Amino acid sequence: MAAQAVNVLITGANRGLGLEMVKQMVEGKIPVRKMFACCRDPDGPRAEALRTLAKEHPNKIYTICLDTTDLCSIKQCAQLVDSQVGTEGLNLLINNAGILLRHSLLETSTEDMQETFNTNIIGPMNMIKEFLPHLRAAVKTSNIPGMSTRKAAVVGISSLLGSIHDTKETYSNMSSVAYRISKAGLNMMTMCAAAELDNDEILFSLLHPGWVRTDMGGKDGLIDAQESVQGMLDVMATLTEKQNVSFLDYQGHPLPW
Amino acid sequence: MAAQAVNVLITGANRGLGLEMVKQMVEGKIPVRKMFACCRDPDGPRAEALRTLAKEHPNKIYTICLDTTDLCSIKQCAQLVDSQVGTEGLNLLINNAGILLRHSLLETSTEDMQETFNTNIIGPMNMIKEFLPHLRAAVKTSNIPGMSTRKAAVVGISSLLGSIHDTKETYSNMSSVAYRISKAGLNMMTMCAAAELDNDEILFSLLHPGWVRTDMGGKDGLIDAQESVQGMLDVMATLTEKQNVSFLDYQGHPLPW
Repeated sequence: MAAQAVNVLITGANRGLGLEMVKQMVEGKIPVRKMFACCRDPDGPRAEALRTLAKEHPNKIYTICLDTTDLCSIKQCAQLVDSQVGTEGLNLLINNAGILLRHSLLETSTEDMQETFNTNIIGPMNMIKEFLPHLRAAVKTSNIPGMSTRKAAVVGISSLLGSIHDTKETYSNMSSVAYRISKAGLNMMTMCAAAELDNDEILFSLLHPGWVRTDMGGKDGLIDAQESVQGMLDVMATLTEKQNVSFLDYQGHPLPW
Repeated sequence: MAAQAVNVLITGANRGLGLEMVKQMVEGKIPVRKMFACCRDPDGPRAEALRTLAKEHPNKIYTICLDTTDLCSIKQCAQLVDSQVGTEGLNLLINNAGILLRHSLLETSTEDMQETFNTNIIGPMNMIKEFLPHLRAAVKTSNIPGMSTRKAAVVGISSLLGSIHDTKETYSNMSSVAYRISKAGLNMMTMCAAAELDNDEILFSLLHPGWVRTDMGGKDGLIDAQESVQGMLDVMATLTEKQNVSFLDYQGHPLPW
């Protein structure tokens, strides 16, 4: 079964959904060979739970300092991952890091928009570009036909709030204009990546985690991180080339663009 | 009929679609009281045609120096418009200024993305925010029921390339990743504005001009600026609250998000 275990990288892995993903994956929800758990300050006070988890899974969890708004930091991360995975490559890149400002349109500043776009759109784009050689290596090494997250995949943590179609319905609950625009932008960027890399057998998917009780989602969320991540990992496990590019919620229901 | 003539502002008015819009509107396609034709350098060599047109229509066309990526410049523009329209307000804001970089995903840099988002998303957002008092004034002055471009409206020049749904079909013709993302973002921003300003009776619309033979569209475009603008102005004239927020091409056909 070792041959099916995957090399995974998750951004924003120190808390919330990212931390829960690391936890459930190394505990066997998806067989993991090497897990690269990236966050901006893996030695800081907000990454204590991740460090504890990493100590419990030596030679499996590798914490990496990564700022996805800094291209140089992404390039260094790619080099570090390269030194660990070699020709095996990276099977699964989960672009989870993101920021959420709750401002309405009239409250949103130019700086709010720029900061949000840098983290939520440009960061994931640069991650895809810099880890493309590792994703391609994983395809080359794999003997699995078609597309799957066990072979080579990029999962973007998007949001229902990024659905242009559903904005009229969801706006009164939560405006978060910069966030909404960034997630619609992430969706489009992912569609472009899938179109451009059409021949590479890399699966692209966009997932809405639900409204989750995390630092980002707040206390009023409808589900906890455990349920959300359990659902998303189940969905990821079922994805094939037929769902390239899908925009699904954590229960596998399709969402409109 | 003078009561139905509108005050209009167009960004990027010195060439291409913007210039053609100014031309057709002041020539009677839509009855115009005052036309604020804005561009970054109204005194420069690239605005010669606009200056000629302005001279032919004194007291109707007002050229204004405006850089939509500079909030201060937008605020100054709003003050200048205010001094001209007073309580009449602004009936029609056309966010036409935009940039198009043709880079693919792998060619697109962080700077390409930032520059494109600043002009194509954040600029239009700040225009809406700063001209909101003038749009509201137009609603207050108007005795037209419902919503229309003759009363108070914001038209965003979007693109078929901003359709996430159609990306798979259109990508091979033209990748232009930063542009695509920015137009999907403009669409989402416009939906947010319409949701937030739901009670203001301001109509929001997104138009795809077609593939036009302009500096931006290139020589291979399928239609000329005259045909595109004629179509868009016809579409604008028919818009009511039922089409708030619509994403339509220059012939009035709806496009998928």
